[in-house]
Amino acid sequence: MPVSEFDIIQRYFAGAGSRRDDVVLGVGDDAALLRVPPDRELAVAMDTLVDGVHFPYGTDPAAIGHKALAVNLSDLAAMGADPAWATLALTLPQPDTDWLEAFARGFSALAQRFGVQLVGGDLTRGPLTVTVQAHGLVPAGRALRRDGARPGDEIYVTGTLGDAGLALRLLQEDIAVPAMHRDFLVARLECPQPRVQAGMALGGLAGAAIDLSDGLLADLGHILERSGVGATLWVDRLPRSTAFRETLEDRPGLEVDWDHLPLAAGDDYELCFTVPPSRRAALQAALGGLDCGYLKVGIVEEETGLRCLHDDGSPCVVGAAGYRHFG
Amino acid sequence: MPVSEFDIIQRYFAGAGSRRDDVVLGVGDDAALLRVPPDRELAVAMDTLVDGVHFPYGTDPAAIGHKALAVNLSDLAAMGADPAWATLALTLPQPDTDWLEAFARGFSALAQRFGVQLVGGDLTRGPLTVTVQAHGLVPAGRALRRDGARPGDEIYVTGTLGDAGLALRLLQEDIAVPAMHRDFLVARLECPQPRVQAGMALGGLAGAAIDLSDGLLADLGHILERSGVGATLWVDRLPRSTAFRETLEDRPGLEVDWDHLPLAAGDDYELCFTVPPSRRAALQAALGGLDCGYLKVGIVEEETGLRCLHDDGSPCVVGAAGYRHFG
Repeated sequence: MPVSEFDIIQRYFAGAGSRRDDVVLGVGDDAALLRVPPDRELAVAMDTLVDGVHFPYGTDPAAIGHKALAVNLSDLAAMGADPAWATLALTLPQPDTDWLEAFARGFSALAQRFGVQLVGGDLTRGPLTVTVQAHGLVPAGRALRRDGARPGDEIYVTGTLGDAGLALRLLQEDIAVPAMHRDFLVARLECPQPRVQAGMALGGLAGAAIDLSDGLLADLGHILERSGVGATLWVDRLPRSTAFRETLEDRPGLEVDWDHLPLAAGDDYELCFTVPPSRRAALQAALGGLDCGYLKVGIVEEETGLRCLHDDGSPCVVGAAGYRHFG
Repeated sequence: MPVSEFDIIQRYFAGAGSRRDDVVLGVGDDAALLRVPPDRELAVAMDTLVDGVHFPYGTDPAAIGHKALAVNLSDLAAMGADPAWATLALTLPQPDTDWLEAFARGFSALAQRFGVQLVGGDLTRGPLTVTVQAHGLVPAGRALRRDGARPGDEIYVTGTLGDAGLALRLLQEDIAVPAMHRDFLVARLECPQPRVQAGMALGGLAGAAIDLSDGLLADLGHILERSGVGATLWVDRLPRSTAFRETLEDRPGLEVDWDHLPLAAGDDYELCFTVPPSRRAALQAALGGLDCGYLKVGIVEEETGLRCLHDDGSPCVVGAAGYRHFG
């Protein structure tokens, strides 16, 4: 029995995520109808994942469903926005019900966790491509932007860096590491956790913020460029996970540039943000209770450009400037 | 010289469309920031076009840019919404500057015409796929929906039907027809004109509305199903363009089912809507001045199901039930 587009949408996606009172009309009409409170601005982010480019062929569809939404919630987090609604454009070669069921499960679980309702989208036939748009609400005038960094601000990151980049290398080069570390690192690559609570807590505190999708060098670079400032980054202080450190320590023969992954590799989906030193206590009060943690890694300076220094003061030279699709 | 994602976005898309005062932050941050007036609901529609599925390989990129936005504006039209903002997820195999320039030109011209600003999106590498989300504003409680058709309502369509379906056959089967007709029909397929003014004028008048993307049978079927009603359609009265009629008249040897294109073929992007007979004069006042025209083609009835009749009362039997991606 052929499965029609309508059946698929009804079966797998019509009830995905949370039920929200501000959705006048969800999946099933020409467009969704949504209510934005008068004291809120609407934040919209749109990201695409392509099979074989943004995830390896054969990736667990539940992980793809999770990640397609997660990368967009990460963008909303970087604006300090509260996630509300999502739309999904799913292009796939054929209607594989097992695949769809798993994809919808991964997508819905994350949507539910952050109170997001799937309100519309499109289902088409073609090479596997997933585009999600996430809509969030942010108090008017309080959004975190890229252009608010000022000289003297301290630079922070949440969580740990380089895990996703290391996982990608492990998968690509089929390198054996202890299962515990491998599972942690691959989960960091395939199931990133958007730092939504951290982003919302940073409203009114952070001068500038961005999420780390292309790597710290490239993404911090955007903040500096948009803010017209420069920075020094202390590369030895970048937060590294236990799995990351032990995988590298156990394998002294690994290529030396792996040590640069926390600086240059993408896909971590942590937040990078700047805060004036005068707000250090307020920052601790706002973020101290969150699981992800946060760490100071540098300082904003008037002199443009990004200087990467080791703790002994020597410069750190890095080849790659982050991941660019057409670089 | 390699062209980076950032350069491409800056060069071709950063200024696309209109400049709007309600855009707090457009292209260039983690998310766009938008202001929705307190007396408006937000309508969002998302549609994907896939190379070789929704347009033939080698289609003029300006036409693809136009159509990717047009099909979404058509969805907003079917809600009675005023278009405001768009986001664009563009996946393409390589950064071909000629292609991008033409695509952006087609997209921007249509955006400009309807006062739409491009506020964000994503650019990725992979098989050519274009997803657009259009955002519109509609007075609270006045949106046109699919579920408002009532027995006794008259069924109308704008414009003419079957042109895009006929154009697709001409292209696929490489059939020679007079250039004037061919150009008209191919333009109807490649550059559909979203019926935005008609949709907005129908607010408060039409009981139900939908845009014709999958063909009249399938799309009217959605209205009937959602409204819990049935209808009779007078198939000989469906509006056919001169190009459509003359192409079929000149070629008596053409397969007979071509005559069913106005009923079953997709891609016309006209509106189908229902209006109580008591509002006939108001309808004429609202739509009479528009170029596209509109025509009564049937009547809503209590008995469910869709009955297609010829003018002599005999039933019209149609094989295809509209285009379904996975049908």
